[in-house]
Amino acid sequence: MNGARSLLTTLVDQGVDVCFANPGTSEMHFVAALDTVPGMRGVLTLFEGVATGAADGYARMSGKPAAVLLHLGPGLGNGLANLHNARRAHVPMVVVVGDHATYHKKYDAPLESDIDALAHTVSGWVRRTLDVGDIAADAVDAVAASRAGVVSTMIVPADVSWNDGEPTEPLPAGHPAPGVDDDAVREAADALNSGVPTVLLVGGDATLAPGLSAAVRIAERTGAKVLCETFPARLQRGAGVPAVERLAYFAEGAEAQLVGAEHLILAGAASPVSFFAYPGRPSDLVPQGCEVHVLAGHSGAAAALEQLADDVAPGTTASVAPLMRPDLPTGELTAFSAAAVIGALLPEGAVVVDESNTAGVGVAAATAGAPGHDVLTLTGGAIGYGMPAAIGAAMAAPDRPVLSLQADGSAMYTVSALWTQARENLDVTTVIFGNGAYDILRIELQRVGAENAATPGPSALRLLDLGSPTLDFVKIAEGMGVPARRVSTAEDLAAALTEAFAAPGPHLIEAMVPSLANT
Amino acid sequence: MNGARSLLTTLVDQGVDVCFANPGTSEMHFVAALDTVPGMRGVLTLFEGVATGAADGYARMSGKPAAVLLHLGPGLGNGLANLHNARRAHVPMVVVVGDHATYHKKYDAPLESDIDALAHTVSGWVRRTLDVGDIAADAVDAVAASRAGVVSTMIVPADVSWNDGEPTEPLPAGHPAPGVDDDAVREAADALNSGVPTVLLVGGDATLAPGLSAAVRIAERTGAKVLCETFPARLQRGAGVPAVERLAYFAEGAEAQLVGAEHLILAGAASPVSFFAYPGRPSDLVPQGCEVHVLAGHSGAAAALEQLADDVAPGTTASVAPLMRPDLPTGELTAFSAAAVIGALLPEGAVVVDESNTAGVGVAAATAGAPGHDVLTLTGGAIGYGMPAAIGAAMAAPDRPVLSLQADGSAMYTVSALWTQARENLDVTTVIFGNGAYDILRIELQRVGAENAATPGPSALRLLDLGSPTLDFVKIAEGMGVPARRVSTAEDLAAALTEAFAAPGPHLIEAMVPSLANT
Repeated sequence: MNGARSLLTTLVDQGVDVCFANPGTSEMHFVAALDTVPGMRGVLTLFEGVATGAADGYARMSGKPAAVLLHLGPGLGNGLANLHNARRAHVPMVVVVGDHATYHKKYDAPLESDIDALAHTVSGWVRRTLDVGDIAADAVDAVAASRAGVVSTMIVPADVSWNDGEPTEPLPAGHPAPGVDDDAVREAADALNSGVPTVLLVGGDATLAPGLSAAVRIAERTGAKVLCETFPARLQRGAGVPAVERLAYFAEGAEAQLVGAEHLILAGAASPVSFFAYPGRPSDLVPQGCEVHVLAGHSGAAAALEQLADDVAPGTTASVAPLMRPDLPTGELTAFSAAAVIGALLPEGAVVVDESNTAGVGVAAATAGAPGHDVLTLTGGAIGYGMPAAIGAAMAAPDRPVLSLQADGSAMYTVSALWTQARENLDVTTVIFGNGAYDILRIELQRVGAENAATPGPSALRLLDLGSPTLDFVKIAEGMGVPARRVSTAEDLAAALTEAFAAPGPHLIEAMVPSLANT
Repeated sequence: MNGARSLLTTLVDQGVDVCFANPGTSEMHFVAALDTVPGMRGVLTLFEGVATGAADGYARMSGKPAAVLLHLGPGLGNGLANLHNARRAHVPMVVVVGDHATYHKKYDAPLESDIDALAHTVSGWVRRTLDVGDIAADAVDAVAASRAGVVSTMIVPADVSWNDGEPTEPLPAGHPAPGVDDDAVREAADALNSGVPTVLLVGGDATLAPGLSAAVRIAERTGAKVLCETFPARLQRGAGVPAVERLAYFAEGAEAQLVGAEHLILAGAASPVSFFAYPGRPSDLVPQGCEVHVLAGHSGAAAALEQLADDVAPGTTASVAPLMRPDLPTGELTAFSAAAVIGALLPEGAVVVDESNTAGVGVAAATAGAPGHDVLTLTGGAIGYGMPAAIGAAMAAPDRPVLSLQADGSAMYTVSALWTQARENLDVTTVIFGNGAYDILRIELQRVGAENAATPGPSALRLLDLGSPTLDFVKIAEGMGVPARRVSTAEDLAAALTEAFAAPGPHLIEAMVPSLANT
């Protein structure tokens, strides 16, 4: 058996059954093996960043790793931004990077580059397989390592793929989930019982219903405040799910949420810091004098919260959000009326992939009482994750509608994701908020105190504006096989969303909204 | 003066007057400074790979560095593939990567990553500026280093940009061009005068008319064979320019070109190696027993060839290619008839950016006798360079028409380059060869001897096929503000090209051609 077939067989045996691929010559044996090894679904993407983002979305919704097949250093380079987001989301993923044959590397052929250096910047596990006999064992290790919530990167030289060999018997590698730390639970309980203002910040695996229920039980009994990390990998919310407020993106907002806290308990979340630094403002958002307690890391946070809840709030049940939708608005569309339409129509069980950035400012409030749904967010801040992640989410949850909320600026980073949505006939409805600008940067220009920020000059504005020429996402989507329409009233958005949700398969709606920075 | 303004002022003083940008919050002070420091043209791209590719194209045609402004590690990651190509093209470029404020890095905010590791994989010079007082001197060094033909990467923390400081007086850094090595010239002359079969392989700065003239003078006097490296950064050719054959991409072809050579003289080119390894085939393409002589590296190769020509072929003049265009073909379009149309109509002084891959197989022959023109090629093999490079080429040579030849597969990597072509109203005519497949990979599947390569299975074919759904580049281009049309006959391609060349500004023509792998 050649190395490619051995690798594929092992991945399938280990439960990896989807491979998002943008292959090249070095990966042709892997591609050919897809027809001889049953059980792996190969999904073509037209750009590597789409493949890595899709694997992220898949892992968030399925809880298990997808494989990604990339071509040498430049292919990995193109996939890095979404691997960065995946690293921040603590998702499992197995990236296979084909490399030149072992004996070919010394010739410094045109595509030669330092793949290992790139891989280490985003991966929790990296290995270069140098002998075909090792590839099955390496694949077992890669999958096992990934299940701890890291990107595993296997670098596979072409000759390792094409050589035949006797695989060494792979050892089932164990990466047991972390247990609950009883001392940490006791310390958190003492803080909660101290009677002084306490904040419980949840993240990691505590942002699904069980962890949220435990956190809300604790809060309702002790008077602590529960907040969710700013960018959860996957947040369950809506009617029937305990509601938690997210920590604000802008540091000023986060400071207001945390003001007065004397204890901060971290359950799966990192200690809060400003997303960027701003002149004269603190980076560390923990209030002065507030004591920080780490209850659990990103993995095992839900279990720790449940134990803590049984300790400080035994026998209680968490309140859940009631079903409560906004009325359908009418008239010219704005960011807020668009959000209300979404809140009014969001289907039961939807998966919302949110990269709406500034234009989505009203969505969280408008959907708080919509039927239960999941939200995937931009964990690492590297834009261009949403449309690819929607691919993976739709494949992991084929019976649930995916709503992909996009800003026009970020949409253009990985826009070819639409083609893969069409090819795989995925039930993804994309709403592009078309405000014709990098609106967030118009705001940030002022927040960082740049020269003339209140009245930016023409050169600065030209780097923040997307209006000239106007991007026509209807044409772009249709050019990639996704039916699309443009709307500029709330009524039309409602009609378009209703139709899209009623007809499975990909759709795109370009929702024209005014810039917030201009208003 | 704050650091951003100091940086910008210094870059302009050092002759850098174009900045391709995809900025974020960390770069807002640089963006704002564009309105207070005159002399820098900021050009927005919608994806970082477009910015880096544009700077590469700009450098190839102007001979000088452009600046590139990128946002943290993910922004640099998105730009890496075209920086890889730029590294292989030995072009000057100054990449400015904004980073978190110095004191903010320790907080591991969501966008934190190892920028330095990424930068080192593609840059010949990397420096992180830690004090505003150093930024002017660092910028002087960066520009000077880049002029030796490397990517210089400056990592600029946000607080270095916004702090005020007294810049240290920058020292004009000297990076003198390498002189001619007299011993190397003598050794090459001896080889050429030895009377045994000798090949002169030119590359680097010897692929412009002066270097080519010297090489052809040498060949015509000594009987040596001249070949040009497979992927020159910039090749001058056509009527009035000495003609040289390029070393073939497929190793079998290159071996045939080199067979029998007993001396191989490298003038600016690397020793020939196979682009990829193939089972049972050599990676090193130098014939057995052939002696290799290095006349010059990529820089200074033209000067060395001129000295060598004056030695072995004094007083001679090189023959040049005659003006000789193909007749305009008729009928259904094929890769070869499309090439003939291009050869028949290519305007005088055109800049041809070639990423046509398999579909462009006939273009070199069909344009060999077209009026003098430049060709920019895919130096590093990382696809997605062509449409961005066309931006930079058009800006560096605003009075010359740019013809961007694209394959449909590679076009999708950095397709948003079309938007920047429209915004800047650049005189770029893009021809997309639409064959609906990664045709090169269908060929490579067989060349690497993959299982069932002659009759690939449905899973393999699905990863090589672009036909379902069909990409509509007319809609995609129009969606980004570039007028476009589709042609499927030679007559229609001729009409479309004639119109596009007559009307300055961007145009796109989708030329439907059959797959070569199918025929």
